[in-house]
Amino acid sequence: MWFLRINMSDRTHQFTEVPEKYKYFAGRALTSNLIADEVPPPAHPLGPNNKLVFSPGFMTGTSAPTSSRISVGGKSPLTGGIKESNAGTPWAWKIARMRIKALIVEGQPEDKGAFWGVVIGWDKEAEQPTLEWFDATEYAGQNAYDIYPKVYEKFEGRRISVCSIGLASEHAYGNAGVIFEDMSQRPSRYAGRGGLGSVMGSKGLKFILLDDSGAPGVEIVDKDLFDEGRKKMVAALQEHAITKPKGGLNTYGTAVLINILNEAGGLPTRNFASGRFEDAAKIAGEAIFEGNKKRLGKELYNHACSPGCIIRCSNTWHREDKTEHVSCVEYESDWAFGANLEINDLDVIAELIKLCNGYGLDTIETGVTLGVAMEAGVLPFGDGEAAIKMVHQMGKGEPMGRILGSGTGMAGKVLGVTRVPAVKGQGMPAYEPRAVKGIGITYATSTMGADHTAGYTIAPEILGVSAQLDPLSPEGKAALSRAFQATTAFIDSSGHCLFIAFAILDIESGFEGLIEEANGVLGTSWTADDVVNFGTEVLKVERKFNEAAGFSKEEDRIPEFMHTEPLPPHNVVFEIDDETLDKVYGEI
Amino acid sequence: MWFLRINMSDRTHQFTEVPEKYKYFAGRALTSNLIADEVPPPAHPLGPNNKLVFSPGFMTGTSAPTSSRISVGGKSPLTGGIKESNAGTPWAWKIARMRIKALIVEGQPEDKGAFWGVVIGWDKEAEQPTLEWFDATEYAGQNAYDIYPKVYEKFEGRRISVCSIGLASEHAYGNAGVIFEDMSQRPSRYAGRGGLGSVMGSKGLKFILLDDSGAPGVEIVDKDLFDEGRKKMVAALQEHAITKPKGGLNTYGTAVLINILNEAGGLPTRNFASGRFEDAAKIAGEAIFEGNKKRLGKELYNHACSPGCIIRCSNTWHREDKTEHVSCVEYESDWAFGANLEINDLDVIAELIKLCNGYGLDTIETGVTLGVAMEAGVLPFGDGEAAIKMVHQMGKGEPMGRILGSGTGMAGKVLGVTRVPAVKGQGMPAYEPRAVKGIGITYATSTMGADHTAGYTIAPEILGVSAQLDPLSPEGKAALSRAFQATTAFIDSSGHCLFIAFAILDIESGFEGLIEEANGVLGTSWTADDVVNFGTEVLKVERKFNEAAGFSKEEDRIPEFMHTEPLPPHNVVFEIDDETLDKVYGEI
Repeated sequence: MWFLRINMSDRTHQFTEVPEKYKYFAGRALTSNLIADEVPPPAHPLGPNNKLVFSPGFMTGTSAPTSSRISVGGKSPLTGGIKESNAGTPWAWKIARMRIKALIVEGQPEDKGAFWGVVIGWDKEAEQPTLEWFDATEYAGQNAYDIYPKVYEKFEGRRISVCSIGLASEHAYGNAGVIFEDMSQRPSRYAGRGGLGSVMGSKGLKFILLDDSGAPGVEIVDKDLFDEGRKKMVAALQEHAITKPKGGLNTYGTAVLINILNEAGGLPTRNFASGRFEDAAKIAGEAIFEGNKKRLGKELYNHACSPGCIIRCSNTWHREDKTEHVSCVEYESDWAFGANLEINDLDVIAELIKLCNGYGLDTIETGVTLGVAMEAGVLPFGDGEAAIKMVHQMGKGEPMGRILGSGTGMAGKVLGVTRVPAVKGQGMPAYEPRAVKGIGITYATSTMGADHTAGYTIAPEILGVSAQLDPLSPEGKAALSRAFQATTAFIDSSGHCLFIAFAILDIESGFEGLIEEANGVLGTSWTADDVVNFGTEVLKVERKFNEAAGFSKEEDRIPEFMHTEPLPPHNVVFEIDDETLDKVYGEI
Repeated sequence: MWFLRINMSDRTHQFTEVPEKYKYFAGRALTSNLIADEVPPPAHPLGPNNKLVFSPGFMTGTSAPTSSRISVGGKSPLTGGIKESNAGTPWAWKIARMRIKALIVEGQPEDKGAFWGVVIGWDKEAEQPTLEWFDATEYAGQNAYDIYPKVYEKFEGRRISVCSIGLASEHAYGNAGVIFEDMSQRPSRYAGRGGLGSVMGSKGLKFILLDDSGAPGVEIVDKDLFDEGRKKMVAALQEHAITKPKGGLNTYGTAVLINILNEAGGLPTRNFASGRFEDAAKIAGEAIFEGNKKRLGKELYNHACSPGCIIRCSNTWHREDKTEHVSCVEYESDWAFGANLEINDLDVIAELIKLCNGYGLDTIETGVTLGVAMEAGVLPFGDGEAAIKMVHQMGKGEPMGRILGSGTGMAGKVLGVTRVPAVKGQGMPAYEPRAVKGIGITYATSTMGADHTAGYTIAPEILGVSAQLDPLSPEGKAALSRAFQATTAFIDSSGHCLFIAFAILDIESGFEGLIEEANGVLGTSWTADDVVNFGTEVLKVERKFNEAAGFSKEEDRIPEFMHTEPLPPHNVVFEIDDETLDKVYGEI
């Protein structure tokens, strides 16, 4: 196993052995520990002292199902705190199979205009990875959909996987994701949140290409135990209604949640002015499935975003003429550009998603920021054409585009808006905190800013997974969020997609499988308690970094307007007091 | 003495007696205590729960020399913390003479487009103030130099004094001052820093007019004692080289500091890239005096900004054709648009100041933000014409203007700049922290963000007032800044201009005079220790508010680049460690 350090100040690199301290870390645990250990908390996120770390999970690159996630970590230009954002992509699978446990990008070139790429390969004789540099300046200033084919072509004959940044990162936006290829070489898999693409851009690094030909694959200490765990995990995923083949996710994609959240009164609509969107059904996962069926003349089930995924929730939206419009229309993106902007047209939503993919923008942050711009009167609610124009302005770096590209919290300040749905500057995802209290607690207290994936209490609060809790009740939700945040930090370190959570929460053998997989790969003898403890330790490291970077508990708050403005249809406010919020990490 | 509360939610008002608790507070002590007592620290600065408080000092309205200052307080949209900004203006003198100890603007109208004005008068028979409303919507969207004459005309025959907001506040900028008239009815006296104009604008309040006809003047408990103190203060001011008639300030204005700071290597140049500007002499106070002399054919000494000032430091810059260009070219404005932008032309600098006055922008914040925009490549250093265009964009609310109008810290983030000279989001004034350590400590730790007036250690570090300290040495500077911050909080509560500090620091009888004036007005028996204690208590209240609003000690820091980038000509960094900075308030 290797650490690969790339120094952009002088364009040198170094493969080193993994220090003992980090041996049992991977994914988020490793990115967060490395950032906490090596980045001074007051460092400017776009300066030479910030670092960008890539790390696949424990199970990534193995045959464990749905485990091809790559964690990207750094100090976030969006939140000003530590950030881990992960994506499912073949790139994750390959870097793991090349036994690179962490890729650490350091320093900063003096020349601000130049961009570079690296190709990481495998030297079979030396039995170690290799690295080549190439000048990537010619690829700057272009749409990702245009440059990806050129890059595959440039390295024709090699099995190249692409990680890159887009224009948003070249503009140094707080809203700029790290882009990864999907299974069909689309620039559509994002470590989207928190502006980590701009950290990569600030270092002049445009591409990280992988060629894993000849790579040895992941070392597994106890193959039998691993296999036992893997089988339990596969069985659980194939059994659970949400994750099974032709189940909820495979049929309708994540957008299956649109109707469910709308029914629950928790689908944020018109910049979080209501929890119900009158046209929800027109943009729901069911409408995507039916729309494709009508246009293609056949049923289309979803595909995998990365090798080894058996959930396969990624959809593709097609135009009237049967050509592909975009892949994929996720729930969050669909909502951000749909209900949140009062847009009810899937073709418009698909176009907005495609623009974000092409420009290197996070769809959630973009949609939530556009909602704030609509609130400010910059463009009208419901005006899809104006929204499309505005995203072009973002991609092109025009002044209003820069305002919106800076992210929800910042744009809200620049535009003088008081109704800004953000925590720690990061825009809120597709669940209304007033209507679903537990997720509100996660938004408020997560080390990541407003992030649904940091502690997805939607599972028990809305989906009845593991339990059926009343979403409107604050009862026990602080403890719930804390437990979910800890377990999530483990899952984010495992390389598994968070969607295994449904199966492991509901099916005991699935959870056993997760632990056995980990113990099999690592040679550990972790128990269920260790999973929570492991995650808790990750959260502590992140929290400590954030405190040293200047976060006080007053930043663990839901915006003022959600405390005072009742949300239709339930006409509820976010009534959870500061003391309760402070207990989430206070009692960790 | 009265409290006047104006509620903008329903356009009602109320005159009430001053609660016992606030009897011995005035100016900054009163604005900060009222904000701390009545505004929830997490309140959105532009929302209905923030308040805007106006309070004249103890001595304002009396015959104490140089004491016509008005404090304006609120939660700042620029820093996110408590803010007091004060200005010298006839308006201050009048509100004090109407015995209004505090004017508290509360609430927020639902109708966002409408603006209102109030006229506060005095009912001689009832022996109390009066208040009338008028619709001021017709004055929105215009330059202050255009609307001020219209307002004086509207109330012709009445002795009207004007306080207003400008376009910057209508755009809700973090950089938007509260505008006050000067002695010649110019819209040129600003409570400029911290965006308090936008708080006023967010409440739909465009004008606060005063007609003090028949007002009884300030009550003085012990007239003899007050007179004794006043005489000592007058004598000290008339004796000190900096403040005496035809002395440094009266002859060359505050811009007398340009050459002095340049010589010391502490004049921030090209967005704080150097401490020395090669063309400093061309924009110095001496050049203003000589330039006017050449154009007018006679020597022109400066004038008073407000009634009773005997320092008289306000200059007027004239065009080639002898007409007035702008009043006044302060050191801070001159530097911000001059050395900081590499502009060496007083006519360009004067024009930039005039634009700020007309649009309602703080000149310091505007210049420092333009420096950051030049750093980002938005416009070139040294390009006066481009800077003028950019300030027009700010006034007009165009997208790039909005970015810059949001203030230095925010603009730096939106533009992705790493060299951003700001603390708590507020742009640094005209003294380089690396070259003058004490002022750097004040910038870092002040409750106000980067603010030279919060603890003006320049006096002993550069000007040799009270002592002659080495500006480059960190030795003893934390204690120095702490002492200066406390004393300043008292001076800001007294109604005196901070410029009395030179005389009271160097001349013992001057300091005695200050205390006797206060004891005379209030009937107190304060000592020199009480001055420091009073100021310290004000700082504690402000600090507590900021902590509750989310500030941690990590916000009491000088930007990273000043720790790593040596500043010419002395090639020094800001080497003061966090522990020392934390002691400034830690040991208060």
